[in-house]
Order: sequence, then structure tokens, then C-alpha cells
Amino acid sequence: MTLKQELANIAKKAKNAARFMLSISSEAKNQALMEMAASIEKEKEAILKANKKDLENAKSKGLSSAFIERLTLSDKRIDEMKQSLIEVAKLRDPVGEVLKEWLVPNGLKIQKVRTPIGVIAIIYESRPNVTSDCAGLCFKSGNCVILRGGSDALNSNFAIYQALKKASDKSGFPEGAINIVTTVNRRAVDELLKLNNYIDLVIPRGGEALIEQVAKVSRIPVIKHYKGICHIYVDEYADLNMATDICFNAKVQRPGVCNAMESMLVHKDAAIRFLPLMLKKFKDAGVEIRGCKMTQKIAKGQVKRATEKDYRSEYLDLILSVKVVEDLNEAVSHINEYGSHHSDAIVTDNEENAARFLKEVDSACVYVNASTRFTDGGQFGMGAEIGISTDKLHARGPMALEELTTYKYLIFGNGQIRTG
Amino acid sequence: MTLKQELANIAKKAKNAARFMLSISSEAKNQALMEMAASIEKEKEAILKANKKDLENAKSKGLSSAFIERLTLSDKRIDEMKQSLIEVAKLRDPVGEVLKEWLVPNGLKIQKVRTPIGVIAIIYESRPNVTSDCAGLCFKSGNCVILRGGSDALNSNFAIYQALKKASDKSGFPEGAINIVTTVNRRAVDELLKLNNYIDLVIPRGGEALIEQVAKVSRIPVIKHYKGICHIYVDEYADLNMATDICFNAKVQRPGVCNAMESMLVHKDAAIRFLPLMLKKFKDAGVEIRGCKMTQKIAKGQVKRATEKDYRSEYLDLILSVKVVEDLNEAVSHINEYGSHHSDAIVTDNEENAARFLKEVDSACVYVNASTRFTDGGQFGMGAEIGISTDKLHARGPMALEELTTYKYLIFGNGQIRTG
Repeated sequence: MTLKQELANIAKKAKNAARFMLSISSEAKNQALMEMAASIEKEKEAILKANKKDLENAKSKGLSSAFIERLTLSDKRIDEMKQSLIEVAKLRDPVGEVLKEWLVPNGLKIQKVRTPIGVIAIIYESRPNVTSDCAGLCFKSGNCVILRGGSDALNSNFAIYQALKKASDKSGFPEGAINIVTTVNRRAVDELLKLNNYIDLVIPRGGEALIEQVAKVSRIPVIKHYKGICHIYVDEYADLNMATDICFNAKVQRPGVCNAMESMLVHKDAAIRFLPLMLKKFKDAGVEIRGCKMTQKIAKGQVKRATEKDYRSEYLDLILSVKVVEDLNEAVSHINEYGSHHSDAIVTDNEENAARFLKEVDSACVYVNASTRFTDGGQFGMGAEIGISTDKLHARGPMALEELTTYKYLIFGNGQIRTG
Repeated sequence: MTLKQELANIAKKAKNAARFMLSISSEAKNQALMEMAASIEKEKEAILKANKKDLENAKSKGLSSAFIERLTLSDKRIDEMKQSLIEVAKLRDPVGEVLKEWLVPNGLKIQKVRTPIGVIAIIYESRPNVTSDCAGLCFKSGNCVILRGGSDALNSNFAIYQALKKASDKSGFPEGAINIVTTVNRRAVDELLKLNNYIDLVIPRGGEALIEQVAKVSRIPVIKHYKGICHIYVDEYADLNMATDICFNAKVQRPGVCNAMESMLVHKDAAIRFLPLMLKKFKDAGVEIRGCKMTQKIAKGQVKRATEKDYRSEYLDLILSVKVVEDLNEAVSHINEYGSHHSDAIVTDNEENAARFLKEVDSACVYVNASTRFTDGGQFGMGAEIGISTDKLHARGPMALEELTTYKYLIFGNGQIRTG
């Protein structure tokens, strides 16, 4: 069987199962999710054993310790996978929700109703927990999933998939409800992305290179969860104590995540009052600053000069680019030009400036007087999410269960025909 | 200037203008739309003159009379363009609508708010009214538009664009608010579809070949308004008088549109009671029937045999494929396999069958006891539309003003930082 056929078979099976999923009850899905959680627990030894194999390969390949850390499963991490599935089972089922309902003059009743999307392919990198997290969310939202993880986590991902699959089979779900692509052929992703007749949506989860490659090649709609180059703009009317706390939190509390601040913009009239103390606080916390000319001047040469590239960088580390700006207008322009349309904040007591910032910053989440670190399905009260969409079509910002659905119109008549 | 540069310049200008559009009031947009309507009227002679040139070219090229009919502008058609702009001005502005608003326990207020998408490219074929219809809808929803019509309507489209542009300029809108690509270079569309840094969405409007080409090449998200292979399934529990009226209406009232019925499915237990009269009615109306073996048998050899290709055909004409099916299950499978996920109907008095059909048919609009001909933004009460999306992501079914928007989250704090 060629690679093409192999992948087409998986995708076709998924498409067939998708029809079954359209008429399945919430109870049946939730029971199956609880079975999956139990199965993860039951298969723990097998999963850890498979993970050990991956870890040995990774070590012999000399992969980085950060990579190995992300790849490593433990009792605790497996328990977290299990707990996530239980939590997803408890979330409200979005499928079937009537979003709108109205009558038209000829007596037709129209309902706009949430439905599953169909078949979703997830292309991801090293963390094996993505396998169960994504499978759980897709399953709950009535979608069939095709998983394609990184080759370095192949054994771990397959063991997790097997645990989930056993539970799905046991619960009476069809074969194609949960699928995994395990071929080591590196062309598998490119071939998969051509199957637009069977797959409705692709979600890449991983680094920039992976996302760009998927977006470039895919004939299937892609929702990108791209990098987070998040800004905080300290306005001339900012409460500077509040600004200090917010900026410090957004940079330091957890620098390795996509909603951490990567670039701080300061109004020129606030810079002299704000920056000396702020920069000292960052320095004490081990944050490396890369600033514009004015920042350097205020810091008396204590900071490195930021390059153009710095302002476009997602450091995911204790590094921060800083720029003093002329006014709100320059701040907004800079954010729209250099940012990644993820999360950006203004600190200000001026309502007019806040309103302009909220309107004009073209990002998924725009904050006034709060840390960007809150961009997260859980923090927003939306439940577990599959990622933060930096795209504008279909889903923007935290992509939770509702964003894994589409809608259709149901029209109820009693013989209406069109005359005009 | 190379083609690439020329297109990038247009797209960049549009992107810049898109920021301006984010903070423009409904009043200003509506006034500009009324100016556009007046400008279309004022420039009528210039538009008709340009159209004459296109018509002469088309005739000398020997293009079909159907093509020439679609290309032809008249006083009446120009007045319709004008009226459409006035109607769009009167529609409710979707931008700024608060879709949801909630508080989270830490005191943050979150608003999910409708915003413009940004820059939308419309790739279309012969009808010149698409120029003003699409420009009006994009403008009203706060989006900047890049128009690329067919080369055979170049002069007409450009004259319409100029009338709109004058009004936009006069109303103080920036240069990039409305744009047209007029190069005759046939690579223009392919190059335009690479500009994903500036263009947020592409909507192709035209035949199958155009849509497939755009979907294949584009690096920008595409929403397809694909063909309508619409079905009506006459269930064993159908009121056969109602079924006759609905099927006749869906096929005959206006066969050249995407929501007309192209394929009729009949339950085997209804076929003998239903088909003879129905087929006679169709025959009297000049409808050519292409049927399955059983249909042929019931029609006593009076109808042609349907091929596999027939069941996948959008005739847009007085032709109908007919199939007798075993049961509801076969009907649903056939529709999901052969249809185009546009509009499909069941005629039945059985509530359980109706419910199953509504759930399991994977189409944008699913009807019970009504003609598929109602799938239309105006009929649905949604106002003017840019087309009927047969895609599942972002917009499905009639794509009116709301579907030309996206959303963002606005988060209002008073110093919140994240601790856990």
C-alpha cells in the first residue's frame, strides 16, 4: 500500500465515523471520555515503557535537555492526562446548542444550530500529552481526530492512542473515531494535507517552522496557533505602580508561555518616571533588557540595543525588548506591525486612550490594566482549550470546545414553496 | 514595477486603510455608501460606455450569448446596483456588537466583540454588478476590499470601481479602502493569493474551475461558495401532494440558481404512488429526467438512465436526476456522498425521520417540508449576502454582513496579575 493510500484510508474511515458522531448523545460521549481516563490509568505501565523507548532514542540522538524534558512522561504527567479527560467529560457539550431561532414571514422557522466540524487533523510536536488532550477535546465536540505527532514521540503517542482507542471501541464508537498516523515517512504530513475531501480542518501545534510549513502546503483550512509576541504599552496616563506590577508579572511569572510579554512600550512622557525603577526590578529578576536609544539613555548604557529582529522575537525566556514611543498612535502601529495578534495590553487611567487602544489594536485579546498572562481558556472560563488562535477566521483567541464546532441551519416548514 | 510589487503595493495600502476602518462610525460608513449609490447614478453614462467596449470585445471574441447576457449592463441593472448600495446602507452595522460579556472571579470583565476581518479579496467572473455589491458589503462591515474581476469585464468593472472610489474619497476614506486589480497579466490572481501578510480572506465567486484554482493556490484563507447539488428526499411518510409541490418548485421555479433541486430521492415505498404523477408534471414543464433503474421501470422506459456523473451534476437547467432509495439511511448517505453540502430537504410527516435527517445530513441548510429555494440571505432575513458558503469554517450557508466580521476579546481590569 502506498503512503497516499494508507493516509486516504485513515481519512476515509474518519469521515465515515464523523457521520456516526453527528447523532451521538452527550451521555455516550461523556461515558466514553471517562472510559478513556480509566484506560490511560490502566495502561500506565505500557505508556511509560513506550516513553522510555522514545527517551532512549532521543538521548542517543543527542537531543536537547529541554526537548527531553518535554518528552518525558511520569506518573504525575499521566495522571494529569487522565484528569484532563475527566474534566473535558464534565464540560458542557456545545453540540446541538440553538444559537439563534427565528420565524420568517412565510411561516418558516429557522434554527442556527451548533454541529461538529467533522474530521480534524492535529499535527504536533514533542509533548505526548497533546495526544490525549486533543483527542479528548475533539471527541467531546463530536469530531473525529487524526493525530500526527512528532517522530521522536512516536512510541509514547502510539501507546496513549492505544489506550484511548480501547476505551472508544469498548464504548461502541466506530473505528475511525480516533486515528493516528504512525508511518515514519516524512512526507506523511504533506500528503495528509492534500486530503481536503475527507479532512475538514487542520490544527498545527508546535514551533514556527511547523506551523508555517503546514499553512503553506495545506489544501485543508488551517487554524494557526502562532507565536505570542505580546506587548504592554505603558501610557502617559498610566498608574505607574500598577504598570510596574503588570509588566513584571507578564514577563517574569512564566516567561516560557505564549501569553508572556515579549516587548514593552512606554510613552515618552512616562519613560523617565517609569523606566529606572522598572528596569531595576527586571534586572534583579534576571531579565535581560534590549532597548531603543532612549531606553539606553535612561538606563545609562546599562542595557543592550534592541535590533529590528528583537522587536519581532518571541523569546519565551527572561529577555525583553523595550521601546519608548511618541504617543498612543506609535504604540498601536508598532503592535500591529511587529506583534503576532495574540494578546496586548495598555496600562492607562485615560478612558479615551483605553477605548482607542481596544479598537485599533488588531489582536485576539486586548487588555486594559491587566496582565496579558490571562489569555487562556481556563482563565477565561471557557474550559480546556486546544490552543490560542492567532488567526481571524472561524476562531480567534482561546480555542475551546465551542470553537471546535461549526453550525448549520435547520429550516422547518409545512409545505412552503418560493414564488418570487 | 513588477507584477509582484504592483500587487503588494495595493495589498499594503489596503492593510493600512484597514486600521482606519477599525475606528470609523456606522454613520460615516452609511453616508459613504449613500454617496456611492449617488455616484453610480452620476457615472451611469461612463459605466455604460465602458460596458459597451467590453461587449464589443466579447462579441468579437465570439463569447457565448449567455456570457454576453451576464456581462450586459442596462439602465435597469445600474439602478439595481445603486439600490443595493442604498439597502446595504440601511442594514444594521454588525461591527462593535457585544456577542458575549462576562466577569471572571478575579474581577476581569471580558467582552467578545464583533470586529471587521481586515482586507478581503474578491475574485470573480463576468457579472459587473459583483463589483459594487461586494464592495458595498465589505465596506459596510468595515473591511477593505481588493476586487479582481474577469478580464472580459475589465472596463465595466473599472468604471464602476471609479464611481465607488470617487464617493469613498469624497467621504474622507483613505485611498486603500476600495481597491481594484486591473492588470491583464493572467498571473495576477496567483500572485495575489500569496499575499497572506496583507490579505485576511479570499472569496472566489464564479464557476467550479475558478473556485478550485483559488482554493488550490491560496495561502490566504478561502471561503468557497461552491456549487449547489441540492436534494429533496421524499420519505415513505411524505404527504405526497406537498412533496409534489415542493419538488416542482425547487426544480422549475428558477432552475439556474444554486439552491434549485438537482437530484430527487424517493423512498421505495412511496415511489409507485408518487413518481408517475410527479414525472408527468415535470415532463409537462419540459424537465428532462435521468433516473435509476427503478425510476425507469416506474416511468415505463420513458426516462433516460442516470449515470454516476449525473448524481454529481449541478445542471442549473431543466434536468433532474432521480433515485429510488431503500430507506432514510440510503438517502442520507447518498446526499452526504454526492451532494455539495449546500441545501437539502426531506418531505415527511414522521417526526423521527425528520429529526434524523436534520442531524445527519451534513449540509449548510437542511429543510423539513419546504423547498430548498429559500436558501438566500434575503429569504432568511439576513439581508444582502456575498454568497452561500459551502465550507464549514467561519461561515456556512448565506454569508451576509455578520459573516464578513470576526471577533476579538476585550478584557477590562484594574491591575489584575496572574499568580497561579
